[in-house]
Amino acid sequence: MNESTFKRTQEIIMYIADYYEQLEKRQVYPNVEPGYLRPLIPDSAPQEPESFEDVFKDVERIIMPGVTHWQSPYFFAYFPTASSFPALLADILCGGIGCIGFSWAASPACTELETVMMDWLGKMINLPEAFLAGKNGEGGGVIQGSASEATLVSLLAARTKTIRRVRSENPELTEADIMNRLMAYASDQAHSSVERAGLIGGVKIKNIPSDDKFAVCGSALEKVLQEDRAAGLIPFFFCATLGTTPCCSFDNLLELGPICNKENIWMHIDAAYAGSAFVCPEFRHLLNGVEFADSFNFNPHKWLLVNFDCSAMWVKKRSDLTNAFKLDPLYLQHCHQDSGLVTDYRHWQIPLGRRFRSLKMWFVFRMYGVKGLQEYIRKHVKLSHEFEKLVLQDKRFEICAEVILGLVCFRLKGSNELNEALLKSINDAKKIHLVPCHLREKFVLRFAICSRTVDSDHIHVAWKHISTLATELLKAQQQQQ
Amino acid sequence: MNESTFKRTQEIIMYIADYYEQLEKRQVYPNVEPGYLRPLIPDSAPQEPESFEDVFKDVERIIMPGVTHWQSPYFFAYFPTASSFPALLADILCGGIGCIGFSWAASPACTELETVMMDWLGKMINLPEAFLAGKNGEGGGVIQGSASEATLVSLLAARTKTIRRVRSENPELTEADIMNRLMAYASDQAHSSVERAGLIGGVKIKNIPSDDKFAVCGSALEKVLQEDRAAGLIPFFFCATLGTTPCCSFDNLLELGPICNKENIWMHIDAAYAGSAFVCPEFRHLLNGVEFADSFNFNPHKWLLVNFDCSAMWVKKRSDLTNAFKLDPLYLQHCHQDSGLVTDYRHWQIPLGRRFRSLKMWFVFRMYGVKGLQEYIRKHVKLSHEFEKLVLQDKRFEICAEVILGLVCFRLKGSNELNEALLKSINDAKKIHLVPCHLREKFVLRFAICSRTVDSDHIHVAWKHISTLATELLKAQQQQQ
Repeated sequence: MNESTFKRTQEIIMYIADYYEQLEKRQVYPNVEPGYLRPLIPDSAPQEPESFEDVFKDVERIIMPGVTHWQSPYFFAYFPTASSFPALLADILCGGIGCIGFSWAASPACTELETVMMDWLGKMINLPEAFLAGKNGEGGGVIQGSASEATLVSLLAARTKTIRRVRSENPELTEADIMNRLMAYASDQAHSSVERAGLIGGVKIKNIPSDDKFAVCGSALEKVLQEDRAAGLIPFFFCATLGTTPCCSFDNLLELGPICNKENIWMHIDAAYAGSAFVCPEFRHLLNGVEFADSFNFNPHKWLLVNFDCSAMWVKKRSDLTNAFKLDPLYLQHCHQDSGLVTDYRHWQIPLGRRFRSLKMWFVFRMYGVKGLQEYIRKHVKLSHEFEKLVLQDKRFEICAEVILGLVCFRLKGSNELNEALLKSINDAKKIHLVPCHLREKFVLRFAICSRTVDSDHIHVAWKHISTLATELLKAQQQQQ
Repeated sequence: MNESTFKRTQEIIMYIADYYEQLEKRQVYPNVEPGYLRPLIPDSAPQEPESFEDVFKDVERIIMPGVTHWQSPYFFAYFPTASSFPALLADILCGGIGCIGFSWAASPACTELETVMMDWLGKMINLPEAFLAGKNGEGGGVIQGSASEATLVSLLAARTKTIRRVRSENPELTEADIMNRLMAYASDQAHSSVERAGLIGGVKIKNIPSDDKFAVCGSALEKVLQEDRAAGLIPFFFCATLGTTPCCSFDNLLELGPICNKENIWMHIDAAYAGSAFVCPEFRHLLNGVEFADSFNFNPHKWLLVNFDCSAMWVKKRSDLTNAFKLDPLYLQHCHQDSGLVTDYRHWQIPLGRRFRSLKMWFVFRMYGVKGLQEYIRKHVKLSHEFEKLVLQDKRFEICAEVILGLVCFRLKGSNELNEALLKSINDAKKIHLVPCHLREKFVLRFAICSRTVDSDHIHVAWKHISTLATELLKAQQQQQ
């Protein structure tokens, strides 16, 4: 790296520092229409090298006008995506080292730091010992790219395990016979990635009706299992959700877990968003029942200040994963692999290659400390209750689901059309950004506390804005009548 | 970002700059034994925040002793993994913006730059127009995390497409009947990720015998297809490899393509390593026949200076992917999605979330220019031929496969045990790092040109080292006899 490269890096860093400082002045959602970018840049790559300055000035001219600013304190859509400086620093280091850690030998530090960081994180949320690698554990953690991949990997492991078990009990059945009778389950509130995992794995998947709290309880699962067993199907996988995407509801693990254990059903827990909250003792009870699960996953890249991608997944028996995926060509073998001491993470995931992502966890956990992470979670939860209170004070509105963590589901009392119109006027104004959901037949607005820098003032500004737009909308509607 | 954060970033950047400058003095492969890291760090995360300085000084103390230095000019193992400063700069920007681009609306710039960069890259390697998105194309490109995912995604798309076609022709067949008869194919030299894709997708996959150049030719595929059709199976997917992992051989696309087209078999091309070379006109002929393919993939994160992860995949019909994967919950819908103008990349891939990875392509393509990228490829190919020449001059050694790009497969004339011993003595010395492969019954050493900074001197040092170790080994063996 020569001096000019060093200066360029400084420029980028200063640009990002400035971006964050000025972020709340930028419009959170862009004005561009589909296809805006292509006319702004050449049809093909340049033959000759261009200067950094030429490339860099195009960032503000071409890229920024089309960015949805997820880190803006006025971004309340989807769920948060993490951004912190410790993670950014670690990611620079990860890019600099540029190693690929698919096996222990491919870069021992990359594998070993990951195993230990997953133990640290497991202990932070008080996961049962069975999920930790420790020194001689049968379980352990792995960083996946996304919760979708964690769900898929666990479904595939469950599929392989079940096929082997059923075949050993019924040698006359072919693999295809069994595949055809396998049945997976998840809440009707589960994320679309669960249905997608079933689609990819070529197995049927069925929604279990959630109750009036949008949670799956034991009796609902049992009812479906009975019907399906009677129809000759083989239930093999249940994906429980802690913190559903529509309204952050929690399936009843303490009822569901024992049923799954008794019925030989792999229980996977998807806590993609909510999982980070379990670092706070006061929210840990929401995870009770995890002891019944075979695999558990949440995304520090959502709400624990570790930049994307970092989806934390634990299994009780690592051999369940490696049995499902292990293929060993010579060019990937190394002399330590059968020692029982090493982990080759390529057998735990869909891709082969993997970056040194545990550096981000290490930097974030140490530079924030557990207390810093807890404070961060608590601030967000406090802000969501603050917003909830504002909504409740306005008789025109209703809260649509219990506010437990950082998500508030609300709507105008009235028709779905009215609420669709309200959301449209909010998102057209582009002062704040929200997305909707359906809760049963109701069209609902989701207000998710997202940004690292959001504070009480932003919440009040957002609410005042929503309330004003609602007034205008209701007035316009009255005039039409 | 306050001043101290800014200083920390500078420290990291200076550390990386220094790392690269001193890299050839570091031992390429670490001395550590499995389990080295855990005793060096605490059992659990700290409660209180630690200073950056405390974390940072542990990088050299704890991490570096366990790193396999993929960017070292003495690293000749596996295949290269890209590392360049333009990509590093872009990745910092990507982390700073911190957006998640699963749909157009989630960050229009993230989606649109990707589509245009994939067109740029497609044009650089002279891909047929049908693979480009252009303004109204039916095809287009997407960044996947790895070649494994690209293979899996194409196999799944082919599976869905075939099941629908067969069912429409034979409404009496169930999906399970068809699944059970589906048959996928790849070379016996194909990467293990192809077999894994079959495993995940729940379909049978068969190896096609390669010829004496380790390539699959048309007649070999035809023979297997005939047998399988006669047995009532449904061939639906063939994965051709350009640049196999063991020896960088090339399947015969011009023979295989027309067969696949005629037989309604999806042809996917995996050119993970070799694909980057097609930016040079003199290597482009190796891609002839791509016009018959349904999907094509290579990894700029291997050999085109775009840091991991960036696996470039194109399809001729994007609807084939979206038909296989599309699920549309309300919280992910947006008002432009059915306009036909926008791309929602979440339907093109396994995960939902995705980083702003096209920034890396944009920075690298512009700051190197096409000519700079060509020079880089040519330098590597020249160095591999230089190594080949050194091997050929030594009558004790043989070259085991034609050297076409940056990989040289070689061995001592003699037994596999002898060559296993040679590899062991090379990797035990840790001066350079290699991995082996099997070519038929032969144990072979792979010498891959990997580092961005490797030059002729390193090649000569490496060869002299190998040659000396061979002399010692042969001498020791003679004394034993």
